[in-house]
Amino acid sequence: MALIVQKYGGTSVGTLDRIRNVAARMKRTRDEGNQVVAVVSAMSGVTDGLIKMARELSENPSERELDVLLATGEQQSIALVTMALHDLGVDAASITGRQAGIFTTGSHTRGRILNMDPSLMRGFLDEGKTLVVAGFQGVTPDGMIHTLGRGGSDLTAIAVAAALKADVCQILTDVDGVYTCDPRIVKNARKLPEISYDEMLEMASSGSKVMQSRSVEFAKKFGVVFEVRSSLNDNPGTLVLEEHPNMENVVIRGVSIERSQARVTITGIPDEPGMSGRILGALGDAEINLDMIISNIAHDGFARHSFTMHSSDLGKAQAALKPLLNELANSKIETEAGIAKLSAVGIGMRSHSGVAATMFKALGDAGINIGMISTSEIKIAVTVDETRIEDAARAVHDAFDLDKAPA
Amino acid sequence: MALIVQKYGGTSVGTLDRIRNVAARMKRTRDEGNQVVAVVSAMSGVTDGLIKMARELSENPSERELDVLLATGEQQSIALVTMALHDLGVDAASITGRQAGIFTTGSHTRGRILNMDPSLMRGFLDEGKTLVVAGFQGVTPDGMIHTLGRGGSDLTAIAVAAALKADVCQILTDVDGVYTCDPRIVKNARKLPEISYDEMLEMASSGSKVMQSRSVEFAKKFGVVFEVRSSLNDNPGTLVLEEHPNMENVVIRGVSIERSQARVTITGIPDEPGMSGRILGALGDAEINLDMIISNIAHDGFARHSFTMHSSDLGKAQAALKPLLNELANSKIETEAGIAKLSAVGIGMRSHSGVAATMFKALGDAGINIGMISTSEIKIAVTVDETRIEDAARAVHDAFDLDKAPA
Repeated sequence: MALIVQKYGGTSVGTLDRIRNVAARMKRTRDEGNQVVAVVSAMSGVTDGLIKMARELSENPSERELDVLLATGEQQSIALVTMALHDLGVDAASITGRQAGIFTTGSHTRGRILNMDPSLMRGFLDEGKTLVVAGFQGVTPDGMIHTLGRGGSDLTAIAVAAALKADVCQILTDVDGVYTCDPRIVKNARKLPEISYDEMLEMASSGSKVMQSRSVEFAKKFGVVFEVRSSLNDNPGTLVLEEHPNMENVVIRGVSIERSQARVTITGIPDEPGMSGRILGALGDAEINLDMIISNIAHDGFARHSFTMHSSDLGKAQAALKPLLNELANSKIETEAGIAKLSAVGIGMRSHSGVAATMFKALGDAGINIGMISTSEIKIAVTVDETRIEDAARAVHDAFDLDKAPA
Repeated sequence: MALIVQKYGGTSVGTLDRIRNVAARMKRTRDEGNQVVAVVSAMSGVTDGLIKMARELSENPSERELDVLLATGEQQSIALVTMALHDLGVDAASITGRQAGIFTTGSHTRGRILNMDPSLMRGFLDEGKTLVVAGFQGVTPDGMIHTLGRGGSDLTAIAVAAALKADVCQILTDVDGVYTCDPRIVKNARKLPEISYDEMLEMASSGSKVMQSRSVEFAKKFGVVFEVRSSLNDNPGTLVLEEHPNMENVVIRGVSIERSQARVTITGIPDEPGMSGRILGALGDAEINLDMIISNIAHDGFARHSFTMHSSDLGKAQAALKPLLNELANSKIETEAGIAKLSAVGIGMRSHSGVAATMFKALGDAGINIGMISTSEIKIAVTVDETRIEDAARAVHDAFDLDKAPA
């Protein structure tokens, strides 16, 4: 008998009919001889409705109280899904974040999981019950309700799977799995049977928004193998797991893109210790998330720094840098919006040479100019003009034969 | 500095504007130099909406899961009221039933309070915070969410006041206080400045639905003085407290009525030990709440039993008695619907004679026939034809000069 954790998002439980579908799927998994623990989100729309009320009462509602308010969404879902299971004759019980023993730390609305005490769930499972656990929430060690922020229900599912030593953790979502590239852009993109945690992390940070990075990091840390698959059909999805030797045979696992990027380049910066820290500090204080960061000494002896960020942060970045640049007589700032980032990701890169050359040649042959380049051990990322990003994705996808399953 | 517990019902927090009013009233009470702890219900309509969803998913939804579902209503209210307090600059925090340390026992959806651990609330009060506590809910000793059934928020308020040794507990509601009779029936009914727990209990059980009996019983047990007053104005309401010697000077404190009653009389019952137990047992097994119970031996040597109940239970009662009556050759059943009960209540009755005579004469003078009569130490109750119940109330109210404040 396997123990299967299934995560259902807000769309999957968005109406009473969909809640019945979730219950039916859980029953099917149980009837196949498994123990089943579902982690569910709030019904879609519920959280937004609660936030709207909060904002009408207070311009800047207290985060502690937002947590108390928003946690009710998942608490409603678990009761309703459990009732639907009862209606199908399944012995089931709902479990709040607190009852699941999810203890958290960090600021309100952005909790991190500190540790887990699954003893209540374990006892219920031993009694033969199917469980429905509230996603997105836990409780601080002193008993305050705490939500886990964006993607919190995925994190709950991974953590519950880890704590219960589940055999499988299924993230049921509105996509079929993880693809070699977004199939809306690259028609012959292929669903990957498996991908390593590190590749998944690079894909996520490069714009493939299947899951938040911290859920993948948590799974990697605790060795939780999980599967991203569709909540609408029974097709196998993509397994996300620790890399194994065979995986290195594939040079590039996938290609991901991120649109609406902008670049800031500042030149004429004295090549002095501490100067990079002041620049990055000013941007960090303004809460701007930088993506690519490239620094160099130009032939004039001054330093030159380039960063990319989401284009919505561009104005804020210029304002944040202004005081510092005003101090520096020779400094100049240059900005460019309307760019996008393309990343090719694969652990095979570590043992194969010529990957960058293949990628750059493919882009060149397609007549696409490369802007900035940044690399990690398992990723090569470039910026291109946003109008060419889809052509670029197709060119790189073709160049590495990603439509063909590896031998 | 006094510690004041205030209870606000679902209508008082039924819209965001009303939530702002509640926050403003709490702030005013605080600005007058008091510590304030509010107990709030779910926004009106929220609980019904949740129950509707539950019934769509399951004909007979699990009571454990109903508790999990319904408890979210109050949890939303406490967060929203707290946000409204913050918006007025009041340092405030929401407190769930669990955080309030309300430990419960009994079946789901009908919890009873077992004990209280107010240490978290006490700590927050010591920090100068105003508190907003979720009514209607607690937690079992093993951590399951538990609701307290009808009138549960009143019970929470009394329990919180007891645990915190509050100076005052205000039940803020849509009536001004407790009246000598329903002012819609008796135009010159008078608001009582005070009433004893026992009188309030007799009034409640006789149809004055200001509060559920168990909340009054809880207050009596723990000596919590509470005040029933309007949430819409600042008029003083009615204090409910342990009787004191002066209270006995008033013969009758008030008159209450209960409509839609029915009577069942069974005759020809053998006068044997255990027979009454079998009859009451059959009605109890059918979950029929009996009100007045009168038994007697008729001149034919057989016993005769009469009961009153709500008229909606009449059919169920006849069905429940049928098997037993079929066994008894001489038995006969007679039923009467369309009656109502009038009760005159007052602890002064204990030390004054002739009370019943005054009451019966007043009814006789008004041409009203008395059906059944039952009495307790502080109550005289009679049944009359339902069409005459308002006349009866006015006649008895006049006979005891209840419109005039006692000297």
